Amino acid sequence: MKKHIYIYSPSSAVRDKASFKRGIARLKAMGHEVEVDEAALSSHQRFAGDDATRLAAIARAAASGADVALISRGGYGLTRILPGIDYKTVAKAIDKGTQFVGLSDFTAFQMALMAKTGASTWAGPALGEDFGVEGEPDDIMQACFDDMLSGQGEGTGWQLPKLSVTGLEQGRGQADLKINKATLWGGNLCLLASLVGTPYLPKVKGGVLFIEDVNEHPYRVERMLTQLLHAGVLAQQKAIVFAQFSNYKLVPHDKGFKLASVVQRLQSKVKARVLTGLPFGHVPTKVLLPVGASVSLLVEGRDAFLLWGHAH
Amino acid sequence: MKKHIYIYSPSSAVRDKASFKRGIARLKAMGHEVEVDEAALSSHQRFAGDDATRLAAIARAAASGADVALISRGGYGLTRILPGIDYKTVAKAIDKGTQFVGLSDFTAFQMALMAKTGASTWAGPALGEDFGVEGEPDDIMQACFDDMLSGQGEGTGWQLPKLSVTGLEQGRGQADLKINKATLWGGNLCLLASLVGTPYLPKVKGGVLFIEDVNEHPYRVERMLTQLLHAGVLAQQKAIVFAQFSNYKLVPHDKGFKLASVVQRLQSKVKARVLTGLPFGHVPTKVLLPVGASVSLLVEGRDAFLLWGHAH
Repeated sequence: MKKHIYIYSPSSAVRDKASFKRGIARLKAMGHEVEVDEAALSSHQRFAGDDATRLAAIARAAASGADVALISRGGYGLTRILPGIDYKTVAKAIDKGTQFVGLSDFTAFQMALMAKTGASTWAGPALGEDFGVEGEPDDIMQACFDDMLSGQGEGTGWQLPKLSVTGLEQGRGQADLKINKATLWGGNLCLLASLVGTPYLPKVKGGVLFIEDVNEHPYRVERMLTQLLHAGVLAQQKAIVFAQFSNYKLVPHDKGFKLASVVQRLQSKVKARVLTGLPFGHVPTKVLLPVGASVSLLVEGRDAFLLWGHAH
Repeated sequence: MKKHIYIYSPSSAVRDKASFKRGIARLKAMGHEVEVDEAALSSHQRFAGDDATRLAAIARAAASGADVALISRGGYGLTRILPGIDYKTVAKAIDKGTQFVGLSDFTAFQMALMAKTGASTWAGPALGEDFGVEGEPDDIMQACFDDMLSGQGEGTGWQLPKLSVTGLEQGRGQADLKINKATLWGGNLCLLASLVGTPYLPKVKGGVLFIEDVNEHPYRVERMLTQLLHAGVLAQQKAIVFAQFSNYKLVPHDKGFKLASVVQRLQSKVKARVLTGLPFGHVPTKVLLPVGASVSLLVEGRDAFLLWGHAH
């Protein structure tokens, strides 16, 4: 299953060249043809080239005819070039078979593309941090990536952690659940919140919204969710799925305020079902998720399933 | 000039009781009558009491008949209780002569009040961090506080730092400036950005927007400003004034990207005049600013003036 994978840098400059090279070597060892964008290692301030350079890189990725356009890394930089992206051309490339894959800062691109064209992309790995790790890349990530490449993937499943079971006490979270034909969307919560009120956040009704973040204290997670709540976004969703929130640090001042507090409070404020534990985010074990696609969400006991493709 | 000052806690729990006590002693030593809200030292998780407790504290501050309602501290907590605040009652209290003063998390309250009623408040000190410091509170802060108490204050002035002079190279920033009868608004940038798209951000046209923040890297400052930009908020302003951005840390990855980069880029994206150096924020030397009031903004050479009251 040899595929053509195009590597480009729409966000922060690649500083860890070793991971970058290991990632490319890994993809080649898997049998793929890897094409590296001419500006993939560009650097301007924090960015992988100035705004024009990164806009041109996105255009080249769209024109590459590759099976997959994979970001080298996230960071920061897409938000400020959102007005300059040629979304129609990207959507056409997707229509012709190029799958755009990434996460973190890439959420801004995914949301804006969805808002402007409705086109679907994949929330998934980045080259350096996922394929470029020392040692073996995560098994589940690789298997999900292969599923995406083959087009045979039909969904993903995970076990709801006890965090979700706390919902039981509120008479929620216990019941089995079946949501059909809902639009899956979301990604990095910081980026989602930073798009509220702009033309780059899609207006999704009856959706399944998934969120993840890194280095964000639960009070900041709550403040961002409160923005989505007060803006009316959450009232439109059928489910809100917490993926992984990693690398934050609780402090003595919290006195019991933690991520579970945020989840519980959110569940008390929305009709949507709130689930947790989705294996995606700034963690090695991540599934790939079709952002903008129609999905089914099932909960049976503590087992949750997001289904797409033929099974859906 | 003895005044009645009401101390309450609408946001985070007071942990530094020593500063709290010193602040009260200081205000009393200045000749004021200090009334402490019954829940001012409440604690629930991170918060100065649960949501109902803090909403009741705000209501008591509004009912106090005090000359000044001063927050004990900022932190986090107002965003989540915005839907429960009785804004009309607060506006009536302001109309009867109670001045609401605070900063940081308090920005959420100020913006929501302005959006719902148009009432004016003061961006200014908090009890603990400003009046409760060890040693003498900042002279300028105290003088501005006295001006606010006496109603004799007519404005504030500051010298534009060289940062603003960089605008010269873009053919901007050099010209003297006179903006009349513009609405002054703003405060903590994180809070402002977190209100975009919600009913709690006032729709200000032809305004003077001031911003400050603490612990936020310039790339995050830029992302927040980009949200205000893409949401169309900045296009409506006549001036954007950077107050103090404190306690952030540049990293090697920045490679020259710094707060001045953010200021320069912003100036290239908006018609509004971008100024810097306003002495307000998470720093000891802070002026008081009438949020929601009509002001004049003057620039003469490197001297900038914000005028209100009789001079205006």
